[in-house]
Amino acid sequence: MFHSFLDLLTSTMSSSSSSRRLLLLSNSTLHPTGYLEYAKEFIKDFLTSAGVSSVLFVPYALADMDAYAATAKRAFGEMGFSLSSVHKEEKPVEAVEKAEAVFVGGGNTFRLLKMLYESGLVEAIRRRALDDGMPYIGSSAGTNVATRSINTTNDMPIVYPPSFDAIGLVPFNINPHFLETDPNSTHQGETREKRIRQYQVNFRVDNHISILGHPGNFFMGHAISTFEN
Amino acid sequence: MFHSFLDLLTSTMSSSSSSRRLLLLSNSTLHPTGYLEYAKEFIKDFLTSAGVSSVLFVPYALADMDAYAATAKRAFGEMGFSLSSVHKEEKPVEAVEKAEAVFVGGGNTFRLLKMLYESGLVEAIRRRALDDGMPYIGSSAGTNVATRSINTTNDMPIVYPPSFDAIGLVPFNINPHFLETDPNSTHQGETREKRIRQYQVNFRVDNHISILGHPGNFFMGHAISTFEN
Repeated sequence: MFHSFLDLLTSTMSSSSSSRRLLLLSNSTLHPTGYLEYAKEFIKDFLTSAGVSSVLFVPYALADMDAYAATAKRAFGEMGFSLSSVHKEEKPVEAVEKAEAVFVGGGNTFRLLKMLYESGLVEAIRRRALDDGMPYIGSSAGTNVATRSINTTNDMPIVYPPSFDAIGLVPFNINPHFLETDPNSTHQGETREKRIRQYQVNFRVDNHISILGHPGNFFMGHAISTFEN
Repeated sequence: MFHSFLDLLTSTMSSSSSSRRLLLLSNSTLHPTGYLEYAKEFIKDFLTSAGVSSVLFVPYALADMDAYAATAKRAFGEMGFSLSSVHKEEKPVEAVEKAEAVFVGGGNTFRLLKMLYESGLVEAIRRRALDDGMPYIGSSAGTNVATRSINTTNDMPIVYPPSFDAIGLVPFNINPHFLETDPNSTHQGETREKRIRQYQVNFRVDNHISILGHPGNFFMGHAISTFEN
């Protein structure tokens, strides 16, 4: 049912002529380490190899954006990069136009996508990432919105975005921190796998959509998806 | 944070002049028993006391509506009620207008709500349940759509409904099969409680919205909410 990640990666890269630089993380933390700590070497390599020294942060997925930006600024500072937050910009689209790289943080996917639309950033980020090869780092919800749609998010629909279509930097869906079903569970809710299958029912006819589940506890290979071509 | 169910029930009933008859189930099954088996006595009492002998079933939450209707027909047949499915009706709104009682089955909340809007049943069911006191039974997704909105569903947003506002038979939200957070879990995704809190952030100003979490494994008191006034 689930194709391997490398299959997807290969088919994605060969079907596109653009130069995408994407680092898509499943999680912001990996138990028991701190914010982004598990991914620091990946992020440093990713940004350094693209010649990036400053990052534009998108904190829209959480309600307290000031606190979120402070956390991100500290983490990127420790890695040697400066960081400014787009929620402090009067003209967010112009900030994206000028950005060396963008980091979209995790939180609630619905809130994030709604604010990306309202601020005009869906189009702006798509254009910069696809046309200019601007490096894009996403984490959890920030990874979901980088895909074709948020149809496979795990988050609660706490606000109503104008669409479930997302930035579309990759032509498939991602289900962050996917967990295998525990066959001994007596939990009465649907399993994650069953929920994803319900989504796939919509695409019996147009079967081009693939869904990738990556376990939250492994960031090598599965939870981190790097596109640099 | 979570008010007790009885507090909510009392405030709901006293703030309304309508005669609602609602049986809102958390789950369709309760491990390890079969479809609706755990709730049969509740359903029988609920329908019999309202003089109901036939039920209109809404199977919109699942893709295979024929199979779903057959399952529901068998279960209600064993309880002594006839059942017809609204997906077989040419004019679903008229079927609701004539129905003695409605049962809205579980599945995917987004699919269910989208089809309720497309078929005109959101308005039709609201009118019958609130104005005529038509008995309404919901299970899981069918319980979510009976509330003010689907903002606290656990389901994946596999399709895009025209709104998250739901039928609104009760003025609060429900989170079906709510689980207490396991403090020992190393799962990297947000906990259910954290997700619900993210929703509540939206209502800091208008604090009238209460959210009810009811454990899926107990249908007495919490998982079944009965309104008959």
